Amino acid sequence: MNNFTFYAPTYFVFGKDQENETGKYVKRFGGSKVLIHYGGGSVVRSGLLGRIKASLDQEKISYVELGGVKPNPRSGLVYEGIELCRKENVDFVLAVGGGSTIDSAKAIAAGTIYEGDFWDFYSGKPVEKALPIGTVLTIAAAGSEGSPDSVITKEEGMLKRGASGEGLRPAFSILNPALTQTLPPYQTACGITDIMAHLFERYFTTTKEVEVTDRMIEGLLMTMIHEGPRVIADPDNYEARANIMWAGMMAHNNSCGVGRVQDWASHDMEHELSALYDCAHGAGLAVVFPAWMIYNYKRDVMRFAQLAVRVWGCSMDFANPENTALAGIQCLRNYLKSIGMPGNFAELGAKEEDIPQMAHTAAFGNGGSGAIGGFARLTEEDIANIYRLML
Amino acid sequence: MNNFTFYAPTYFVFGKDQENETGKYVKRFGGSKVLIHYGGGSVVRSGLLGRIKASLDQEKISYVELGGVKPNPRSGLVYEGIELCRKENVDFVLAVGGGSTIDSAKAIAAGTIYEGDFWDFYSGKPVEKALPIGTVLTIAAAGSEGSPDSVITKEEGMLKRGASGEGLRPAFSILNPALTQTLPPYQTACGITDIMAHLFERYFTTTKEVEVTDRMIEGLLMTMIHEGPRVIADPDNYEARANIMWAGMMAHNNSCGVGRVQDWASHDMEHELSALYDCAHGAGLAVVFPAWMIYNYKRDVMRFAQLAVRVWGCSMDFANPENTALAGIQCLRNYLKSIGMPGNFAELGAKEEDIPQMAHTAAFGNGGSGAIGGFARLTEEDIANIYRLML
Repeated sequence: MNNFTFYAPTYFVFGKDQENETGKYVKRFGGSKVLIHYGGGSVVRSGLLGRIKASLDQEKISYVELGGVKPNPRSGLVYEGIELCRKENVDFVLAVGGGSTIDSAKAIAAGTIYEGDFWDFYSGKPVEKALPIGTVLTIAAAGSEGSPDSVITKEEGMLKRGASGEGLRPAFSILNPALTQTLPPYQTACGITDIMAHLFERYFTTTKEVEVTDRMIEGLLMTMIHEGPRVIADPDNYEARANIMWAGMMAHNNSCGVGRVQDWASHDMEHELSALYDCAHGAGLAVVFPAWMIYNYKRDVMRFAQLAVRVWGCSMDFANPENTALAGIQCLRNYLKSIGMPGNFAELGAKEEDIPQMAHTAAFGNGGSGAIGGFARLTEEDIANIYRLML
Repeated sequence: MNNFTFYAPTYFVFGKDQENETGKYVKRFGGSKVLIHYGGGSVVRSGLLGRIKASLDQEKISYVELGGVKPNPRSGLVYEGIELCRKENVDFVLAVGGGSTIDSAKAIAAGTIYEGDFWDFYSGKPVEKALPIGTVLTIAAAGSEGSPDSVITKEEGMLKRGASGEGLRPAFSILNPALTQTLPPYQTACGITDIMAHLFERYFTTTKEVEVTDRMIEGLLMTMIHEGPRVIADPDNYEARANIMWAGMMAHNNSCGVGRVQDWASHDMEHELSALYDCAHGAGLAVVFPAWMIYNYKRDVMRFAQLAVRVWGCSMDFANPENTALAGIQCLRNYLKSIGMPGNFAELGAKEEDIPQMAHTAAFGNGGSGAIGGFARLTEEDIANIYRLML
């Protein structure tokens, strides 16, 4: 196991009706003038925004609003939010929505108190300070409610890039599984896929002797495998939603990723897809991950076999462990298909002719050195080969 | 899953040589005058205390010292520490040691800024505020490095009681697995048992639909089952020590115990044993837990069978799940014996004639209502029956 630090000081409030306590937590964490940031009209129509405003009113906390966050959130709205926060002397940013809204709120919170262009943070500068952030989560997926990360797409050039830093950890996050019950099955499945991807990205490592984090990741994956089909079959299943919601947070707050090399090449490769085709992040990952696995499993057949046996319940082929490794990848494909996820470029609306451009940007775009990934170091050529496996 | 809040804002610094950064973290978390609290001479002889003092000197942080913490830490030393902290205007308490030292440091940190008797906190009053606490952990066991809990024995009457509250969460904890390599096998095994007990106490629940926390607990138990014998056979195995150390923290910071009824009757019953016979807490738990399981498994045979199959790898007896449940309990007995733990009263030095007194104190002592436990509600008579199973 490698040396590490781990610091996750977010206050989680989990369960039914907890959004009605939002005002109390904003106050506890020092907010007196809030930006409420959200996406489309569904949080208005559902009454959620009204309940949150009522709880702020109750604590005599004033607020301004900025809606309009879209999936794959854009830089334009971030600039607008920063300007609004400065003009209105906002001291607390409250995100009401899923990962896109939270990520946009994080960018605004960091940018408001930063003299330069907020995009600096999405070009490699760590975020040490930001306005305090609170979240009321409505989609279990990104894990942004408990992570120090944010992903924004710059409209100029459609660059989808990440920022990171302790300043971006939410002060509090309210997780009410009931708020996710209205999500359509497709979006629910995208969230499930994103959560599983966060686990795979930590699981595939070159670090030896990481049994404790292996076992935690495997446990969270088995939770997703058990709960995913239940919630797709019965969207109102609060209990399945609750298990998925806590798993989604645990999958990405890094308590099960510490002390080990991780591999985020799949996320990088997916970001090219969603930036170019505006597909859902989870849908993109459903196409990318099995291809990434097929391309790379020979680098550590026994790790892939371990995943297949422990998580998917495959039988170990002791004479030929490669068969077991491949069986596990096939189980993942079957699972993703069963919850309604796409399996190839065509189903995603992606085009073969864009592969060279995407491979180049993935390899070099984010200030990259021409190679990405921790478990498997991938060159532009490797990346293009993996994209071709998705055709 | 039940509603819950979860807040674990301890900064963890994990890995080789990290104790040399102690001064930096004391400074970061606001300490300028430190009480260094420790147990016996081993931290002096090993040079650990010297390295920590050097790192405080480097940051120009002054300190006073108080050694002498014993296993099952006593109230007398706590009063002494409180007096010393007040006299010397200490603003930060640094524990160097295992759970006993940390728990004693927590009591001092809470008591120093409290006007009344610190024992109030060990009689049910929640600890909201305390001096900031840092820890340099030398034994993987109690999980106190990441928990809001502390256990102290009051010398008058030998009452062993717990306190709890957000004020008791350490500001930072330094976990260097190499510092645990000098532990004798018996103490190492006691630590392993304590960690596993913390997991069982969360696992046995009446709350339905808790797959995510079930799976995490199971993963941590499997880690302990794998790493325990390795470290007993080879005390210098850094990697096994590292996996156990992180599992020990995760087992007790409650991220895998949220949203579910827990059962701490076994810990209560063990506290009577270690208060009366001054045995190691882990050794007491090794005797208590299998007996508690045998007495209670019929309340939820399928939960015990699930543990047996998923964690111990037992075959499911579908015709008679009770056989599987019992096979799992036997696996635990075999495991504890294999790492050198005692299995009954005689091996522990406990006496049959004390059973009525212990059962009475466990049931009524801690301001109790006469019944303890969340999974199985145990009366004084039940507790006595369970003690008798340990003969």
